Amino acid sequence: MEVKENESMSIEELEEGDGTESDRSKWYTDTILQSELADYAPVKGCMVIRPYGYALWENIQKALDKMIKDTGHQNAYFPMLIPESFLNKEKQHVEGFAPECAVVTHGGGKKLEEPLIVRPTSETIINFMFAKWVQSWRDLPILCNQWANVVRWEMRTRLFLRTLEFLWQEGHTAHATEQEAETEAKLMLEQYRILAEDWLALPVLTGEKTERERFAGAVRTYCIEAMMRDGKALQAGTSHFLGQNFAKAFEITFQDKDGNLEFAWQTSWGVSTRLVGAIVLGHGDDKGLILPPKVAPIQVVIVPIFKTEEEKALVYEHCNRIKSELGDQIRVHFDDRDQHTPGFKFNYWEQKGVPVRLNIGPKDIANEVVEIARRDTREKIRGVRQAGLANELSGLLDQIQKNIFNNALEFRKKNTVSVKTYDEMKKVLADKNVFVETFFDGNGEDEGRIKDETKATVRVIPFDQNEEGECFLTGRKTSRKVIFARSY
Amino acid sequence: MEVKENESMSIEELEEGDGTESDRSKWYTDTILQSELADYAPVKGCMVIRPYGYALWENIQKALDKMIKDTGHQNAYFPMLIPESFLNKEKQHVEGFAPECAVVTHGGGKKLEEPLIVRPTSETIINFMFAKWVQSWRDLPILCNQWANVVRWEMRTRLFLRTLEFLWQEGHTAHATEQEAETEAKLMLEQYRILAEDWLALPVLTGEKTERERFAGAVRTYCIEAMMRDGKALQAGTSHFLGQNFAKAFEITFQDKDGNLEFAWQTSWGVSTRLVGAIVLGHGDDKGLILPPKVAPIQVVIVPIFKTEEEKALVYEHCNRIKSELGDQIRVHFDDRDQHTPGFKFNYWEQKGVPVRLNIGPKDIANEVVEIARRDTREKIRGVRQAGLANELSGLLDQIQKNIFNNALEFRKKNTVSVKTYDEMKKVLADKNVFVETFFDGNGEDEGRIKDETKATVRVIPFDQNEEGECFLTGRKTSRKVIFARSY
Repeated sequence: MEVKENESMSIEELEEGDGTESDRSKWYTDTILQSELADYAPVKGCMVIRPYGYALWENIQKALDKMIKDTGHQNAYFPMLIPESFLNKEKQHVEGFAPECAVVTHGGGKKLEEPLIVRPTSETIINFMFAKWVQSWRDLPILCNQWANVVRWEMRTRLFLRTLEFLWQEGHTAHATEQEAETEAKLMLEQYRILAEDWLALPVLTGEKTERERFAGAVRTYCIEAMMRDGKALQAGTSHFLGQNFAKAFEITFQDKDGNLEFAWQTSWGVSTRLVGAIVLGHGDDKGLILPPKVAPIQVVIVPIFKTEEEKALVYEHCNRIKSELGDQIRVHFDDRDQHTPGFKFNYWEQKGVPVRLNIGPKDIANEVVEIARRDTREKIRGVRQAGLANELSGLLDQIQKNIFNNALEFRKKNTVSVKTYDEMKKVLADKNVFVETFFDGNGEDEGRIKDETKATVRVIPFDQNEEGECFLTGRKTSRKVIFARSY
Repeated sequence: MEVKENESMSIEELEEGDGTESDRSKWYTDTILQSELADYAPVKGCMVIRPYGYALWENIQKALDKMIKDTGHQNAYFPMLIPESFLNKEKQHVEGFAPECAVVTHGGGKKLEEPLIVRPTSETIINFMFAKWVQSWRDLPILCNQWANVVRWEMRTRLFLRTLEFLWQEGHTAHATEQEAETEAKLMLEQYRILAEDWLALPVLTGEKTERERFAGAVRTYCIEAMMRDGKALQAGTSHFLGQNFAKAFEITFQDKDGNLEFAWQTSWGVSTRLVGAIVLGHGDDKGLILPPKVAPIQVVIVPIFKTEEEKALVYEHCNRIKSELGDQIRVHFDDRDQHTPGFKFNYWEQKGVPVRLNIGPKDIANEVVEIARRDTREKIRGVRQAGLANELSGLLDQIQKNIFNNALEFRKKNTVSVKTYDEMKKVLADKNVFVETFFDGNGEDEGRIKDETKATVRVIPFDQNEEGECFLTGRKTSRKVIFARSY
């Protein structure tokens, strides 16, 4: 359900670019591989999500799954294999997705009568089932979500951001009225905003996509859009008001309270493992990952410091005790590996983005204190009392969560520029990647031309606008202010 | 990873059988469809897991995921698409799985250079990655699990029990020593036993499979085997000691502490959505499902009883209050649908197997009591005080959980028969399905012949045997006592 970026930057393109972009791209890949979030798979374009990356994804899932359920949705599971003919039922949908489908032609040693596609998204099969389940207004709304894998045959792939197979959730709903579906689409976008801002510490702009960037088959596509540390935009989640497009294609009809036969109104919405890439690119620095405490697989790591075997015994016992004391409240790990020095371990956990490190040696034990090292500010706090450490750390993790968010917000503000003319836009985009805020009432063709010339696209038409101004391109009066940016 | 049943009963076969079998098969399908656990999907052999069925699966997942993590394993995610050539690397494995693969031949509008198979199980791709990650003994053990969908092109399918696509977890581990891998395989089988017995209330026999029933590529396959309400066996989970078979095929080698290069020792283990079918067949009765409280999506349902609108207002307010009071401790649902009578609702929730129903009317409210109806015994308990209701219900749910388990255990005991001769076995299996306990030292060929003649196979060689006896077929002395049964 994420709107497809037709030709955004790939690793290859970046490496042809200027030194900064190429460095950034190498940094991204190296950071992911070295921190063991993921690894390349034998099939080109596929990836393995390693335990550290998967634990991060599980924490994101857990937070979002609760929000999805708290807003009244139920999880279900629909088959991955879809008859090829289903895709053809909604005209725009097939145009958008057919070119990137993986096709199963053989099963059980035989050629299939009708090829099956591996779901690139599940509107078609889910709406086929909805049509079977919905007869009366009493059957509505259907508020349904699934956690699943999908396959899109992308030519240019990148770990987490664009892979042939990825994991996501896709919500699909059917309603009796247009207004209800519209409210639903915005409600779920709001859940995505909360997920991004409160859990991933990524400030996002919320709003609508232009027609050119819309999901194939949607009437309107809403999105959350985040700025990465290189000034580029990353679409972090989308929610679509589908109108009656799919209901008509799949004949989802219901008898309303007055006995009239009506088509249902629908939405769909999704976020994916791309969010892991967003965390990497949105917070990381030259030392590696910086993980938001609320979703970090390990929030606090304990590194023992000792010289003699005698000290080791004392320190290990103490570290284990602190670990078990903190264990109820905090996700804590004790690095008891023998083969590495403390210095190695400091770098190791720094690269993995663990928010807080506790260094504990014999002197600390004697003084009943610990040393705390923050990943975000790289500050050290010495002599923190052991008594009340769990509360101290909980408070610190909250503070780090806020600090990471504020840093990202500050960065976005600093790198957002208002322009009035196309020349101005070209100028600010010449040196670096920024969000360009401007009035724009051009069409898809204009957007295409601007993209060719600047590599920037309209990322979002933010909600709640009440200003008027002149379009930077056409000079016409408009109240549509948009954000142009280069994007992942 | 579940051992494949080559030609076990299908819906079609059953319907050709005697009346009882056919009724049982119809009962199974009707119960699943009517209780909305699942529905048929457009692709033959596939199913949709509906919200009620998925919530049940989520509760199973949650319990098992905790056990998997508590025993030191980490979740990860490996790609679904596997190069066809990978399957050929382990001889027995390819023989077992190649005939039932779904094959992707086209991607992104082009024919692929090498076809990709949709994983039927992930040993091949996971061990390819393990080979990359393992160099030294320090890299071992790798204790890894994934929750995923798999596809096996089965010709004869049945909701939950055998579908083209199903959901499961598959654990994959690599160890430095044979003993460690053997211990691991048994440890995970023990987790499956706990899951089946303590959570699903299904007593199981634990033991080993014969060579004929072994997982393709394993040295030994361990299993948990349950008896369904029709006396048939259902394999509910398997754990495999793989020896070094896959390590040799994928070159997973490591330097041991003495500097020698060794192959790793491995295990794999899995349970699937088949467990939902086991719950249906293991506990259900002619009124529908009977769900074990610990995994039931709804543990307590409240049905309001009223005549006038005035009474309705009073009763609804009261029901909502009780719901919110219970909500912290118990999964409770208030059935506030207007269009149905209490009688309709009683049947509806009975069929869905909700363990406890509360009936609440104006008199109950006046007397500060509720009426409780148990699904398992179909008893009614009148005049239960509202004060302390949450504790009362928690206790009752525990009692129901135990009672369901004991019923199933009692049923298995009653339907397990010891035999000494083949004639005896044929006789006991002539009228009905039972577990036949007997000494057996025959080979795979013998097993095949017995299956042809009786439709029964060796389900399990139970652990911890110390008796000796004569094989019912060969008359030879043996200490191998086995369970023969017809199976799903």
